[in-house]
Amino acid sequence: MARYDFASDNVAGAMPEVMEALVAANAGTASGYGTDHVSRAAGDRIRALLDADAEVRFTASGTAANAFALTLLAQPHEAVLAHEHAHICTDETGAPGFFGQGVGLIGLPGASGKIEVAALEAALARPEVSYNQPANALSLTTATEYGTVYSEQHLRALVAPVKAKGYGVHLDGARLANAAAAGFDLKSVAKMGVDILVMGGTKAGSTPTEAVVFLNPAHARRLDARLKHAGQLVSKGRFLAAPWLGLLGEDGGAGPWAARAAHANAMAQKLAGLMPFPIKHPVEANGVFVEMDEPTLERLRGEGWFVYRFLDGTVRFMCSWATTSEMVEELGAALKRVAS
Amino acid sequence: MARYDFASDNVAGAMPEVMEALVAANAGTASGYGTDHVSRAAGDRIRALLDADAEVRFTASGTAANAFALTLLAQPHEAVLAHEHAHICTDETGAPGFFGQGVGLIGLPGASGKIEVAALEAALARPEVSYNQPANALSLTTATEYGTVYSEQHLRALVAPVKAKGYGVHLDGARLANAAAAGFDLKSVAKMGVDILVMGGTKAGSTPTEAVVFLNPAHARRLDARLKHAGQLVSKGRFLAAPWLGLLGEDGGAGPWAARAAHANAMAQKLAGLMPFPIKHPVEANGVFVEMDEPTLERLRGEGWFVYRFLDGTVRFMCSWATTSEMVEELGAALKRVAS
Amino acid sequence: MARYDFASDNVAGAMPEVMEALVAANAGTASGYGTDHVSRAAGDRIRALLDADAEVRFTASGTAANAFALTLLAQPHEAVLAHEHAHICTDETGAPGFFGQGVGLIGLPGASGKIEVAALEAALARPEVSYNQPANALSLTTATEYGTVYSEQHLRALVAPVKAKGYGVHLDGARLANAAAAGFDLKSVAKMGVDILVMGGTKAGSTPTEAVVFLNPAHARRLDARLKHAGQLVSKGRFLAAPWLGLLGEDGGAGPWAARAAHANAMAQKLAGLMPFPIKHPVEANGVFVEMDEPTLERLRGEGWFVYRFLDGTVRFMCSWATTSEMVEELGAALKRVAS
Amino acid sequence: MARYDFASDNVAGAMPEVMEALVAANAGTASGYGTDHVSRAAGDRIRALLDADAEVRFTASGTAANAFALTLLAQPHEAVLAHEHAHICTDETGAPGFFGQGVGLIGLPGASGKIEVAALEAALARPEVSYNQPANALSLTTATEYGTVYSEQHLRALVAPVKAKGYGVHLDGARLANAAAAGFDLKSVAKMGVDILVMGGTKAGSTPTEAVVFLNPAHARRLDARLKHAGQLVSKGRFLAAPWLGLLGEDGGAGPWAARAAHANAMAQKLAGLMPFPIKHPVEANGVFVEMDEPTLERLRGEGWFVYRFLDGTVRFMCSWATTSEMVEELGAALKRVAS
Repeated sequence: MARYDFASDNVAGAMPEVMEALVAANAGTASGYGTDHVSRAAGDRIRALLDADAEVRFTASGTAANAFALTLLAQPHEAVLAHEHAHICTDETGAPGFFGQGVGLIGLPGASGKIEVAALEAALARPEVSYNQPANALSLTTATEYGTVYSEQHLRALVAPVKAKGYGVHLDGARLANAAAAGFDLKSVAKMGVDILVMGGTKAGSTPTEAVVFLNPAHARRLDARLKHAGQLVSKGRFLAAPWLGLLGEDGGAGPWAARAAHANAMAQKLAGLMPFPIKHPVEANGVFVEMDEPTLERLRGEGWFVYRFLDGTVRFMCSWATTSEMVEELGAALKRVAS
Repeated sequence: MARYDFASDNVAGAMPEVMEALVAANAGTASGYGTDHVSRAAGDRIRALLDADAEVRFTASGTAANAFALTLLAQPHEAVLAHEHAHICTDETGAPGFFGQGVGLIGLPGASGKIEVAALEAALARPEVSYNQPANALSLTTATEYGTVYSEQHLRALVAPVKAKGYGVHLDGARLANAAAAGFDLKSVAKMGVDILVMGGTKAGSTPTEAVVFLNPAHARRLDARLKHAGQLVSKGRFLAAPWLGLLGEDGGAGPWAARAAHANAMAQKLAGLMPFPIKHPVEANGVFVEMDEPTLERLRGEGWFVYRFLDGTVRFMCSWATTSEMVEELGAALKRVAS
Repeated sequence: MARYDFASDNVAGAMPEVMEALVAANAGTASGYGTDHVSRAAGDRIRALLDADAEVRFTASGTAANAFALTLLAQPHEAVLAHEHAHICTDETGAPGFFGQGVGLIGLPGASGKIEVAALEAALARPEVSYNQPANALSLTTATEYGTVYSEQHLRALVAPVKAKGYGVHLDGARLANAAAAGFDLKSVAKMGVDILVMGGTKAGSTPTEAVVFLNPAHARRLDARLKHAGQLVSKGRFLAAPWLGLLGEDGGAGPWAARAAHANAMAQKLAGLMPFPIKHPVEANGVFVEMDEPTLERLRGEGWFVYRFLDGTVRFMCSWATTSEMVEELGAALKRVAS
Repeated sequence: MARYDFASDNVAGAMPEVMEALVAANAGTASGYGTDHVSRAAGDRIRALLDADAEVRFTASGTAANAFALTLLAQPHEAVLAHEHAHICTDETGAPGFFGQGVGLIGLPGASGKIEVAALEAALARPEVSYNQPANALSLTTATEYGTVYSEQHLRALVAPVKAKGYGVHLDGARLANAAAAGFDLKSVAKMGVDILVMGGTKAGSTPTEAVVFLNPAHARRLDARLKHAGQLVSKGRFLAAPWLGLLGEDGGAGPWAARAAHANAMAQKLAGLMPFPIKHPVEANGVFVEMDEPTLERLRGEGWFVYRFLDGTVRFMCSWATTSEMVEELGAALKRVAS
């Protein structure tokens, strides 16, 4: 039976703190559709963590969270700028177009998943014509699809010209915990002008939950009706909120959410140290991307390890909160065998 | 602090069997997006329960489940026939129109939430004109919004003329457990020609999960891409499937799902027995609907019990798996006080 | 062969002034997508007529014009208030939901096609809940579907509470020419706070064209991209604009557009005078609505005159710019025969 | 004042035959929404021309025609294969996504606007995964965006593997007249399996009209309701149909539609003969695409000729039915001046 441990960071279950929080939240009655005490408490923790006054909601799917967020930032006849390999562009089955009624996506280049500032500026400078969807928002991702983490300076250089145009900014933080563990300052999100943050719970080690954080007060109006209309307001909302009481600390601290992401990042570093193949992207978060030819990949799969060839042709190894040193060593031994 | 115990059947948490199943499902790795072993096992139980070969998927929201299902049965320029007080018509913020790009809803009358056969037949007989959205599907609900349960004969009388036209049939089973507990034969669903069943987990006593059962083989094609596009394919799918391993029995039995619904139904009967107000709809499932004037309702709320005035002007009391005899008696005493 | 002369005001062709304007506009080259000199000139005439600075665009379909307009006034999770028998509610095949991605329509009652002020106020006072689409706009129609014309006072009484809420106002003026001919002051449209006016050309006696007048400056942004995205920006735009150079006068006058509508209204008066059946709505514009039983209607059709039974059960007779006194007299004679 | 004569083939007005047909069609009454005698007659001519039994409808916008057509061939979670520079991909403001609720577009490479067979086959062979929109249709264009015309053999090589998969085929014939004039056999369209043809009237020299030809009988069902819902069924339909009675011959012949396209093609040949710049694509229809640096283009504009730099960096010159030899010679002289 193939082992999927390194195939994705969503193959692991939920960390014990999350399961305990779910059990604790199960007690008693709670009002429906996110108006309950658990949702309120989880929102409070997120607001404290980000040092920001914000509306916070919870969805079961990251794809839905991202696509929904974009509906607030670009109208159907407009477009969203994003890295050409961003999850919204390549891995969400066109969901932004479904939620956003054909909203456009404009892919931008950039090494290792980070948007090149010059490419963004060129896109922003393009004259508007009636037969193209003009940009109205920028979507960022950190940690990126290639396991790298934007510097705050790089992010600010991307956000500034977008905000100067009056456009919106979305941050896909499916792996924000890994970025935070790598030094990204969570309190900079609000300060730099992000309008909507999708803060990943699932890949960080939770049962299905993504926190959608609306930092722009203009987006608060009729938010629950908007969510419900889009099929994103669950009846027993407390069970999407509860994981965050396990993930985050009580005092505005990042709690196990970041601590376990730090572990995942460390596992990636360990794997990088054992890797007999050329590493193609800086290992800054929880993924290692290597050059590997097809016969070698087949031999690795033959050894029982299933991993994916990724968008840029590299082979991807993802670590998670559940990855152990032993697993890394086992994989390292297999890699050594197939490399020789 | 107000008590919401009878305000809705979604105010209760999850039954212990569900929490245990979640914990059990958390062990080990699992592949993503519903391709995991837990989802397979839960699907098997549902197929056994319904005695039907079907595709089964799981969503976190009943609104999303219903609205998504309808996209397979009616194109945007078509319409869905439903009881005028069906949840999809009155309580889902227009979600069918969002998922179905403006698909129409045609409300039909009928006592106590059950569609009148003659009204359906009249709607089906209406000539098609280009300026109206023609019906292409029927949406049924049992137990109904008014706590009643269709007889199999009534359902067959509604389904037959719809299928004769080649149209589709959706069954909103948010409270199917209560209907089953009231004698509805689950094995009749497939036999009578329902195309898509939304089988309620949440209101039956689960954490968020609805099973969407695709009984029509034509709907299997590219189903996961369709779900993902609509934001309805969660990454760690096992946590939406797992509750069903706690809800249902292993042997094709309805397990705690139906047993605890039987309890909820019994609590409604008990409450009906204590009710000092005129009961306006047959108490066949887990709800009691009574005539009560506004000052009396205010007095009841003043006693600490929050309940809703419903679509038809009655006041609604819902029981759940978590309702206890003591709670009913406490409420009964309060009702007695405000009635006198 | 049946005569459709009174079946609708869209069965007539275009008035000679329109055909001449089309021929005149055909000369020479013109830039595409509405950026041409004819479109500019037609827009100027409309701005002069309405005494308003406004963006003006032209569409081939009134349904598209209305549905498109509403996308600027209500988001998909919101709703539009309208008379329950308004064209957008009953005769446009759900197009508002298609353009508006499931935007809701809330039907309001009112005699003879005019919305009752109290009903509107009650709708505006309804508390917002997440499971309903809250109103964000009002759609008005004058002349109404029942051939009546709002007083300016009535319109102001409807618009005021809507604007007070910060909501938008759409005026479906498919038969605005008939209203103007009946005394409605066109210069009041902008003053009273209408955001978008759809000014009917087709029913007034043009080839297909409706002028969509954007009176709210906030709607000008990226308007052409929005139109193009929705399939509403035609390449040779001059041919949708040109009819307005035939319809309207050069000096801000309403020209043949209103003059010929006055004729249509007069024909309706004449028909009303000959009518042997009870007239059910005030004859204020170009339609006559009467009580007529089915056998009588069949006899009338047997006489060769095809007309429709309308939404409220009355039989509808529509006059147009092309209706002649002789036609009315012929019809009058037939009516007399079938009545006796 | 700049001359736009060669900027696009939509800057010209309508040919005299079209204007005459419009005037002729204006006589008398006609039933609405495309049910009239003119629409029937125009449909008959198109069926005769194509030698095919088909439903024919007329729209005012080619963008709307294409985007609407695609809704019948691919569901929102699916995608349409097309040349990466096809009009639907680059010049229609994302309209396919609006009409098709986020339907995907997959751009394919190929020289001079023609899709490479191998690239199509590779796209068809790609394994389906839930996180990508799988192809369900192919969209072809002839004459292409680069003024080339597919051989019938090339088209068959593209259509065959698509039909083998059970997918649909759309043919964007905005410039089909030019292709026909260049030798393309119109009777091959139905035979080779095209499902929906958009047959261009506008660029061929008409007032706004595109004929949408539904060759697949499965698409006839509820077609008018579908069109109306999408804002594509105009009230006085005869005026969108009438031009075709001027464009096409009575006897199944291609009439002025093709004859005047032959003239446009000949003008392009003449221009090619005078062209002092390298011609980058075979001149097979009515466009000439040349290599020209920016200062030279500016000088040409300075001479009073406005033309566009196109998607591939070439400068585009379009001829139309209205282009005269004198105009070509004038332009030729200006080109000679700026080239030296």
